[in-house]
Amino acid sequence: MTTTSGEFAAAGVPGSARRRGKVLEHAIFQAALDELVGSGYATLSMEAVAARAQTGKAAIYRRWGSKEALVLEALRELLPEAGPAPDTGDLRADLLELVMRMRAAMLSLPGRAGRVIMSELDHERGLPFAGLMREKVIEPGASRLLELLGRGVARGEVRPEAVNHMVVDVAPAMMLYRFKMLGPPTEQDAADLVDQILLPLVRR
Amino acid sequence: MTTTSGEFAAAGVPGSARRRGKVLEHAIFQAALDELVGSGYATLSMEAVAARAQTGKAAIYRRWGSKEALVLEALRELLPEAGPAPDTGDLRADLLELVMRMRAAMLSLPGRAGRVIMSELDHERGLPFAGLMREKVIEPGASRLLELLGRGVARGEVRPEAVNHMVVDVAPAMMLYRFKMLGPPTEQDAADLVDQILLPLVRR
Repeated sequence: MTTTSGEFAAAGVPGSARRRGKVLEHAIFQAALDELVGSGYATLSMEAVAARAQTGKAAIYRRWGSKEALVLEALRELLPEAGPAPDTGDLRADLLELVMRMRAAMLSLPGRAGRVIMSELDHERGLPFAGLMREKVIEPGASRLLELLGRGVARGEVRPEAVNHMVVDVAPAMMLYRFKMLGPPTEQDAADLVDQILLPLVRR
Repeated sequence: MTTTSGEFAAAGVPGSARRRGKVLEHAIFQAALDELVGSGYATLSMEAVAARAQTGKAAIYRRWGSKEALVLEALRELLPEAGPAPDTGDLRADLLELVMRMRAAMLSLPGRAGRVIMSELDHERGLPFAGLMREKVIEPGASRLLELLGRGVARGEVRPEAVNHMVVDVAPAMMLYRFKMLGPPTEQDAADLVDQILLPLVRR
């Protein structure tokens, strides 16, 4: 680790590694979400993010004018992509795969950060974050589920009336509720959700 | 409204009505939950509660040593009793009655206060409140639901395997999720939850 000319020297942080562009940006996003999960949104400070990312506050403010802008972009970049809908030909295997992906996303750093922020902020201040979670997590998950249920209908495994927007809320609602009440969902919880709830609910 | 000798004069609040014992206590509980819903737990102050209840801070501290103690007792006293399980002889009517009660409780002042505090506090600081919500709301609701499902099994309307603890989480999980995502649940939302989710899930 050497102090160098240019960006990091200008930011005035001795000992920071020479990092540029995407690498530095990623370290800042990671630091922002780590801080958010550790201390909550209200007490999240740009200073703490800078310290954790081993850069200067100025380097952060140059790119993001507010912590809202920083956290929104960090979530947008770090939340995993939904990927294509599972298509194993078997309804239970497809549902289990989707619920396991949902669990993994919920336990990931950006997933935990999203949960913290959505539970901390009231409706109005939470709107930009809710919009992002909807766009990046909820809607892709719902559309994958509708797609695999549709294939189940075609195979004669799923009731056509079960392919609706209330049914697709059941898995995320149950995962979040049980997370809140009982702590992080286990793989067994995911399997139970499929076997006790989703299959009986949608099967013909 | 007259300033009187004794408790209220001692508290130093001019113009407070002469209220004693249970009446004053109820006004303080109500004020505490109003403040909580309005401004959140972190910024809730005993001073603001006293001002809203038109009493003195000393009168409050004499009874409750901390805001945690005050809010816990306010919730314990003001949360509605669960009442006996619905027993109309008809599964759909029983489920609808239970879900409508759940909705009413969620929209009531203590229900909104419970929601605010459970979403604001992290796991550790939330524990005493989670314990209270479990004891006063969740467990009574679950036991009423298990009871009415049991009668449904006896009538041949309900699958015996559906009478389990994961199934009883579905209604509160869905109500809370949709509240967060779409705002306060309507009567139509309650009916849809029964018709689209609960009945297909438990019916034989």
